[in-house]
Amino acid sequence: MDPCEVVVAVDLGGTRMKCGLVAADGAVLHRETRPTPRADARDGGRAVLDALLETVVELGQKATAEGHRVRAVGVVVPGVIDAEHGTVGAENLEWVGTPVLAELQAAVRAAHGDHVPIVLAHDVRAGGYAEFRQGALAGTTNSMFLPLGTGIAAAMIVDGSLVSGDGYAGELGHSKFIHGDAAELCACGQWGCLETVASAAAMARRYTARTGRTVDGAREVMQLLAAGDPDAAQVWHDALAALVDALVLYTTLVAPTRIAIGGGLVGAGETLLQPLREGVHARLTFQREPEIVAAVLGEEAGMLGAAQMAWDRAGADEEEQR
Amino acid sequence: MDPCEVVVAVDLGGTRMKCGLVAADGAVLHRETRPTPRADARDGGRAVLDALLETVVELGQKATAEGHRVRAVGVVVPGVIDAEHGTVGAENLEWVGTPVLAELQAAVRAAHGDHVPIVLAHDVRAGGYAEFRQGALAGTTNSMFLPLGTGIAAAMIVDGSLVSGDGYAGELGHSKFIHGDAAELCACGQWGCLETVASAAAMARRYTARTGRTVDGAREVMQLLAAGDPDAAQVWHDALAALVDALVLYTTLVAPTRIAIGGGLVGAGETLLQPLREGVHARLTFQREPEIVAAVLGEEAGMLGAAQMAWDRAGADEEEQR
Repeated sequence: MDPCEVVVAVDLGGTRMKCGLVAADGAVLHRETRPTPRADARDGGRAVLDALLETVVELGQKATAEGHRVRAVGVVVPGVIDAEHGTVGAENLEWVGTPVLAELQAAVRAAHGDHVPIVLAHDVRAGGYAEFRQGALAGTTNSMFLPLGTGIAAAMIVDGSLVSGDGYAGELGHSKFIHGDAAELCACGQWGCLETVASAAAMARRYTARTGRTVDGAREVMQLLAAGDPDAAQVWHDALAALVDALVLYTTLVAPTRIAIGGGLVGAGETLLQPLREGVHARLTFQREPEIVAAVLGEEAGMLGAAQMAWDRAGADEEEQR
Repeated sequence: MDPCEVVVAVDLGGTRMKCGLVAADGAVLHRETRPTPRADARDGGRAVLDALLETVVELGQKATAEGHRVRAVGVVVPGVIDAEHGTVGAENLEWVGTPVLAELQAAVRAAHGDHVPIVLAHDVRAGGYAEFRQGALAGTTNSMFLPLGTGIAAAMIVDGSLVSGDGYAGELGHSKFIHGDAAELCACGQWGCLETVASAAAMARRYTARTGRTVDGAREVMQLLAAGDPDAAQVWHDALAALVDALVLYTTLVAPTRIAIGGGLVGAGETLLQPLREGVHARLTFQREPEIVAAVLGEEAGMLGAAQMAWDRAGADEEEQR
């Protein structure tokens, strides 16, 4: 394999794009972070799409200028991808049925010609795929990646493959684990979603709702917890209880051998993981008990997954041409 | 293909064995039902295993006597199969780590020689596979078969394949959908399982607990419901509410396009299906809405799935030998 072959990988987030030029062995030859423009509903998030296209083209130019050959492009986005039409719906980006794949294809074709395939995927699934191929889930055949960040979604590994579900699967964060009067309305329109108590955003919001005090995200709630603040303890307890319910249900239904927790909250380390392990262990009866571990690829997981998927596609295309 | 090639298929239930000789095109050339001996814990369900072995051997002899060639054997059981060791744990059969595959192999080898492969699978997964290959789920790539019988378990079709989860996946019946004081202890040791309110057995038991009147299973509860009995209505309502919760959760997490309800309860037809459809429709927001339909293969689903899996194995073995 030519050491100068690379893929262009971009993890498009609501505030930042994490970008890389990644070799076939996973080595990141170049990495950079760019700001994502603020999405505007009036132009359907056009500025975000333009910034993405520009980034992909400029990274490709950089690769070429440095003597690398661009083999494929991998882009991951925080939204639902219609695989048939290549369109994306993403609330944070103001995209509604936006033809992202077609626009990427046009931009990449103009820059590199027809031979560079493009993969468009979901950010959490891509992160889970990276953990599966080279991170905390390596060696498993049934496992889950669950990043706890601003939102919560799962990447599911089932019988050795990353689940797609046509782009819809894995919405554990929008499954109901809070019942009765305690259920709050979620941004998705349902009541009592896991995300309403266990995301980093929910923990900060719920602490403020209890105390009237503004906090600097879940990080500050965790600091208050460590300092013995009883409201922080209650918010934390509610999050843990819902997470245990969610992990038990996932274990019962999908039978993972390992669950890797990621996202900002996993910065709490054993303060988060140990109660989850104990809570899950106490609840299981006949089920196979999963290991519960921290994800290892951190904020780069999505970009690395985009790169891995792009390399997979390049390999499959080559196989087909033989 | 030789029209006289068949597989031996047995669906071993707690009270009956449904058996067939099935051709490659799915035609059932012979079908019979045999009683399952009562399982005795003192001999580890040995009588059940002996009856299974005898049935498999006799069906093979019958096939041979009628000029058919036995290409493979498919056996499905109501228990957890350890795929690595070929052992089965099945409460109703008093099997605990019972080496079913090895015993089947010895019996089949003695009867037919070394060339007849054996598939051992879970009855609900086999039933779901039959619905997927030739029944209500044909043409789907993401779907679920949910038989509501004495117990409840799901067969999951994900991205075009039947999920195994090493034999552990699909236990939707033992997922928690009843909360707080309403949660009853399940036979599995957990509280508030779907099975405690929505299985046919649970509906009869709960009606008796409310009224003191013994009923002839869920069938009589449904008759009482039709006659306007308020206790039957409450038992039915509780079952429907929990089922809606379960279908919404499954839809959110796994994104099926179609759900086929099977088992005895589906005899209620639209009385069951229409409220499930309405309940699920009312709850979904961003999710893809699945069709909710009746399974079509009825009590033969498990046997037909066993036959399909046996034919798949025969084909794969042939492929390998080429």
